[in-house]
Amino acid sequence: MAQRDLRLLGAWFSPFVLRVQIALNLKGLDYEVVEETLNPKSELLLKSNPVHKKIPVFFHGDKVICESAIIVEYIDEVWSNNALSILPQNAYDRANARFWVSYIDDKWVTSLKSVLLAGDDDEAKKSHFVEMEEALERMEEVFNKCSEGKTYFGGDTIGIVDIVFGSLWSWMRVIEEMNGRKVFDEAKNPSLAKWAETFSADAAVKGVLPETHKLVEYAESLKKRWAAAAAK
Amino acid sequence: MAQRDLRLLGAWFSPFVLRVQIALNLKGLDYEVVEETLNPKSELLLKSNPVHKKIPVFFHGDKVICESAIIVEYIDEVWSNNALSILPQNAYDRANARFWVSYIDDKWVTSLKSVLLAGDDDEAKKSHFVEMEEALERMEEVFNKCSEGKTYFGGDTIGIVDIVFGSLWSWMRVIEEMNGRKVFDEAKNPSLAKWAETFSADAAVKGVLPETHKLVEYAESLKKRWAAAAAK
Repeated sequence: MAQRDLRLLGAWFSPFVLRVQIALNLKGLDYEVVEETLNPKSELLLKSNPVHKKIPVFFHGDKVICESAIIVEYIDEVWSNNALSILPQNAYDRANARFWVSYIDDKWVTSLKSVLLAGDDDEAKKSHFVEMEEALERMEEVFNKCSEGKTYFGGDTIGIVDIVFGSLWSWMRVIEEMNGRKVFDEAKNPSLAKWAETFSADAAVKGVLPETHKLVEYAESLKKRWAAAAAK
Repeated sequence: MAQRDLRLLGAWFSPFVLRVQIALNLKGLDYEVVEETLNPKSELLLKSNPVHKKIPVFFHGDKVICESAIIVEYIDEVWSNNALSILPQNAYDRANARFWVSYIDDKWVTSLKSVLLAGDDDEAKKSHFVEMEEALERMEEVFNKCSEGKTYFGGDTIGIVDIVFGSLWSWMRVIEEMNGRKVFDEAKNPSLAKWAETFSADAAVKGVLPETHKLVEYAESLKKRWAAAAAK
């Protein structure tokens, strides 16, 4: 389905922008990505998301939608006739999916950010690594319960929990690489290991996933910029 | 509509529990409130919300739903045939409503909590008071834009933004009273002043709103408990 009026203001490294890209790809929609420079923030970003000044911003004709999880729900609702539904059809399953999206945004995103912001402070990082490992164990349990032996958190097809959690997977790898320390234990979380592999290979995901080594380079440059700013 | 299988695990002072009560009242549903003691947390709470261990928890037959905004959406979706819709019918308006719910949970709740947790540290409180005043100005603008001259954020009837923001109104009054300082300026925010009055007088809200002086007493006891814990 060709849609000439869909634009996404984003950045290649952002897991939040990636969520929206995967949702659009799943729906088979054509869209234009407008790369946001962020430093300084563009006029378009400041004007279209004056409250948070954050990417992604999604433009559907003259409509502007902000906040990644909200954009994904919007896309699912507007293009609801497509065979693939990103949120479950049933109200209770939908509440459960929203619960885990909120859990990931709350616990998992916070832990990942905290490790990145801790710089070289190994002591500060320790507790965040533990939090990450606990969250992974939790998500392994959730997967086993929700997927009911199927491929994804959402069942046979990729759903909102897959999108939100899966978009952050590369950043977990970045943290492992930057710290020379494994966080994800395949033996402890065999279901997630298999899930991550299948998810990353899906046609809607494969082409838009940034490469880990490029993300590591980017994260290293961020770290230097933060350290320089802190030293001022 | 009598529903004998609806139970809400909550506490009289919680603005998050209040959200769910208002939603249930709007839908005209009968429900039982189970008062959670919290200190220590009940077996029922620990078992039904093992992830966050927080109220409210909503029981619909054998289904358990957690997180106040998610519960409100669930109620709206399950009892969707009722005349009153808590979320807008249109996908774009729904995305906008979710955006402001997330804004309130992020900015407004954080500022209110920070003031309460700052105890007697006036310096720490100052910036949070400014944040609160800025958020009120923002919400005044949002109201004027979203309500289109109607009574509520949601238009002619109470919607999710009204519920989420309105449930926190008494706690703003508590903060004003405890600090001997006005936060809400009626002259600056005339639309919100009128809105708060109409909202509080609505049949679905009136009977479940806790009285400010009782909340102040409760908040003072909390403050003492926190100070004692910090002194240990």
